[in-house]
Amino acid sequence: MRFSRLHAPTLKETPAEAEIPSHRLMLRAALVRKLTSGTYSYLPLGWRSLHKAVAIVREEMDRAGAQEVLLPALHPIELWSETGRDALLGEVLIKFRDRHGRVNALGPTHEEVVVDLVRGEIKSYKQLPVNLYQIQTKFRDEPRPRSGVLRSREFIMKDAYSFDADAAGLARSYAAMYAAYARIFARCGIETIPVEAESGAIGGEVNHEFMVPSPSGEDRLVRCNACGYAANLERAECPPVARTTEPPRGEAREVATPGASSVEAVTRFLEVASRDLVKTLICMSDAGPVAALVRGDHELNEAKLARLAPGARAATAEEVERITNAPVGFAGPVGLKGVRLLADHSVAACANFVVGANKDEAHLVDVSLGRDFEPEDFFDLKVATGEEPCPHCGAALDLVSAIEIGHVFQLGVKYSAAMKATFLDENGKAKPFLMGCYGIGVNRILASAIELAHDADGIAWPVSIAPYEVALVAAGSKGGVTEAAESLYEELGARGIEVLFDDRNIRPGVKFKDADLLGLPLRAVVGEKSLAAGRVELRLRATGELEKVPVAEAADRIAQRVRDLRADLEAAADRAGKEAAEKIGAS
Amino acid sequence: MRFSRLHAPTLKETPAEAEIPSHRLMLRAALVRKLTSGTYSYLPLGWRSLHKAVAIVREEMDRAGAQEVLLPALHPIELWSETGRDALLGEVLIKFRDRHGRVNALGPTHEEVVVDLVRGEIKSYKQLPVNLYQIQTKFRDEPRPRSGVLRSREFIMKDAYSFDADAAGLARSYAAMYAAYARIFARCGIETIPVEAESGAIGGEVNHEFMVPSPSGEDRLVRCNACGYAANLERAECPPVARTTEPPRGEAREVATPGASSVEAVTRFLEVASRDLVKTLICMSDAGPVAALVRGDHELNEAKLARLAPGARAATAEEVERITNAPVGFAGPVGLKGVRLLADHSVAACANFVVGANKDEAHLVDVSLGRDFEPEDFFDLKVATGEEPCPHCGAALDLVSAIEIGHVFQLGVKYSAAMKATFLDENGKAKPFLMGCYGIGVNRILASAIELAHDADGIAWPVSIAPYEVALVAAGSKGGVTEAAESLYEELGARGIEVLFDDRNIRPGVKFKDADLLGLPLRAVVGEKSLAAGRVELRLRATGELEKVPVAEAADRIAQRVRDLRADLEAAADRAGKEAAEKIGAS
Repeated sequence: MRFSRLHAPTLKETPAEAEIPSHRLMLRAALVRKLTSGTYSYLPLGWRSLHKAVAIVREEMDRAGAQEVLLPALHPIELWSETGRDALLGEVLIKFRDRHGRVNALGPTHEEVVVDLVRGEIKSYKQLPVNLYQIQTKFRDEPRPRSGVLRSREFIMKDAYSFDADAAGLARSYAAMYAAYARIFARCGIETIPVEAESGAIGGEVNHEFMVPSPSGEDRLVRCNACGYAANLERAECPPVARTTEPPRGEAREVATPGASSVEAVTRFLEVASRDLVKTLICMSDAGPVAALVRGDHELNEAKLARLAPGARAATAEEVERITNAPVGFAGPVGLKGVRLLADHSVAACANFVVGANKDEAHLVDVSLGRDFEPEDFFDLKVATGEEPCPHCGAALDLVSAIEIGHVFQLGVKYSAAMKATFLDENGKAKPFLMGCYGIGVNRILASAIELAHDADGIAWPVSIAPYEVALVAAGSKGGVTEAAESLYEELGARGIEVLFDDRNIRPGVKFKDADLLGLPLRAVVGEKSLAAGRVELRLRATGELEKVPVAEAADRIAQRVRDLRADLEAAADRAGKEAAEKIGAS
Repeated sequence: MRFSRLHAPTLKETPAEAEIPSHRLMLRAALVRKLTSGTYSYLPLGWRSLHKAVAIVREEMDRAGAQEVLLPALHPIELWSETGRDALLGEVLIKFRDRHGRVNALGPTHEEVVVDLVRGEIKSYKQLPVNLYQIQTKFRDEPRPRSGVLRSREFIMKDAYSFDADAAGLARSYAAMYAAYARIFARCGIETIPVEAESGAIGGEVNHEFMVPSPSGEDRLVRCNACGYAANLERAECPPVARTTEPPRGEAREVATPGASSVEAVTRFLEVASRDLVKTLICMSDAGPVAALVRGDHELNEAKLARLAPGARAATAEEVERITNAPVGFAGPVGLKGVRLLADHSVAACANFVVGANKDEAHLVDVSLGRDFEPEDFFDLKVATGEEPCPHCGAALDLVSAIEIGHVFQLGVKYSAAMKATFLDENGKAKPFLMGCYGIGVNRILASAIELAHDADGIAWPVSIAPYEVALVAAGSKGGVTEAAESLYEELGARGIEVLFDDRNIRPGVKFKDADLLGLPLRAVVGEKSLAAGRVELRLRATGELEKVPVAEAADRIAQRVRDLRADLEAAADRAGKEAAEKIGAS
């Protein structure tokens, strides 16, 4: 492609709206333009990168045995009611009433639609397994679209859905997708950390997020450099803590804490640290009320509590008053009747601490475990802080910010049971499908690659998803430069190399700046001086490494270097896929 | 691909909902499934065909110098207000209010969005021409979705938008797209007739529709087999007609026509044919009232009238009464004052006809041109009926039903002027862009191909958009059939041929039926008997032509035949592109 014919209005200034590097550079390098909050147009260069990422995803999904389909974006709301997710997703689910008065939703994900597609058509275990995927625009009315294409209202997602007859089949389908994801991201030149994660609105039990470590990420994860354990912060396990051996300071005493119902107010009033207070959080579970005890500086992890006490949710103010005889903010474990007392591990290490007195405007101080109350047991109940040791090997954990780029789920029968999607097993018995679902944010592949590889001057694309592979710069037009550059452009085209040829009639300095900004992996400069010396100058964008090659050998040398770059990523994908398969196979 | 692993639930029965062949066969051959009225899921086979059509469109657009982009589907309604098309499109434009109260539209087409994208970024004539295209899902709340994927609420459109500095540039951009369209449809094996058409809600003057002749089409066009003239019925020109030489039967007489205000009622009451009546249609134009005279059995073509009398619209009942002194239904040309009288060509041939008397419940009979009134002149004012002679050469026209598969428009400055999208010309003067827009209904490529090539047993795909190129059938499993088929499957794969290998453990008869239904261009059968005779049987789906080839040569022979089929379409595309370029260049 000739730059003179390319619609690529690069920007010298950094747009004020952009806060993170990928957003800034995607605007400056003319990859995208904002239409409204959370919607972006892809310009020709951005589209080429996106298209290459899509092609890689497609190839790897096909390689893993998945079959491509295309499902509608317009959904009848009735399908969402079958699983109750219309209510669960709330305002995120975009809905409108059509001219016939029917409510349509815009697909934010497609579990319901794909289950509806296969129910009645996959009738027998003999037709299983099946894995259907699509690469499609999704719509979500995000409360706060931000970070450019990282969190937008409209984005391209690869979503796959596997159907199996039994748990072993689901595990195989899951493993195949897990390994395919590792290959995909490696081919795109993106380092990912697969972590255990919570399943959120999708549901199911086993699931992994593929995370790209980046200060621009809005997710946080812990990683153990010793044993390889990794989990997002919501999911991270916190190991047990030794019980305190500190002797009690004296009897527990009630103190008045007028108006102090929050941890902050109580600790300020009593002049103690928040870690010296134990919160008593009253919840209602399917089996009755539960009190979760968590240190004042920790946060209750509701998903962890719900695994111990199914159906657990925060009690209402009325329920709290009924159970504790006190308004919200004064609950405590001492003397609390008819309530399961579940304590977080870290509470075991507390001594002489503060709790609510189950009495308006009063707390107990110098409370001791065992003497004043004893919980049913100590459990992992809190949101990890990143300061805990590794739950597997005890080593210190790293706390890392990251971008979620993919997510794989073992859903089990959650959707198939709710939607009565069954098949006949070997014994002719109807059984719900065992499902998995597997998502990749395709736009995030681009943003992640840029977050991982950029400098002050611009992007440094991995060759696999660069808009073009080589930036060919004609620096000037005299001394045969134009002719030599034109001829090199043709020779590279004939060798199957994708070249962006900067043939514009502008100063070489501007061309160099644009080349750095666009970040194609290899830059080839045909300049007057070096040409006089019979040389073309090559420069690797990622490292700055320079090489001067004889003009006659330039095309072959450039083609070879591009092939080497391609091969590096293919090799990395082979390694990553193999490692992932071993890891998931062993887990 | 092995059929045993493919999700392709073919149907024996014809679904009751499907009325036209392509709809029936797309359902039966497991290409699509209906989700709701006007939305379809593409199953793996359908997706493969769609993907191939998309790839052909993309290659030809790139070849013609257009650059691919991807624009959002969510549009701020304010953009649509800038051109007034939010009102013009009415309920077809899907709208919803987002969580922040802003009204969003779902893109049914992208003129507004693309103009917004380039305004401010293309600043100089030096940056022109630019042609941006995308291949994207569009949304339209059709009043009556029907005919399967031919008219649906959600469909894939290739839409391109060209920007030029002057009329000559626009003509070049238009010609490039026109020729690209001819190539695209020819490569897809689809015969099209480019016709002059009305521009409808898109606007602009010069435009052509690419029509696929088919009884299932909902459009109608006229075509001249003598000179090649073709136009859709709304646009077709009707040539002048010789003035009547029939002598008047007597004086014009007023007759009472109580309650008879419609053509049907008047002609029944007077016992005359509707062609013996001349309708007087009162319209208001920018320059005042206009009466359009059209024969009773003809229909006024409002677009034609508007070209003669800019701004023309039907008068309201009040306006009719004021102008004619009579209620609607009794207007006539005799004695009508202060109104331009424009007559359709066919009125010139009328003698002794009926008109309204400009008086309640009265008509005039035995009216004669010249004697009783004379129109300003005779013009082409009616909707063609298909019975007119060719306006260019006078030969008889064919009236053909057709599917609109593509549409190209010279928009001129319609959008750029309304949206203040300008560039600086050579003299530094701001000018609005000259635009063209160019659409292809990608899903219609599939449906059209099927409409053109099917029989009672199923589809007969053109090789370029067939889901696979060869149906390899293992007929039985004994006598080495399985081994021979497996080995042929491998050999064909190695030769780059796309094979659907029917390895299912079912009766050969069922496999043959499915092969006919799916309609892959070439079927290769490995059967026990023919194998014993050392032969594999090939059959061309389109013609039924049979060929028996020695087993050892089968792979090479099949590959050769597939390459021949591919080459035929490529050659057809070259011819079609050349012819189109000549035609549009000459017009």
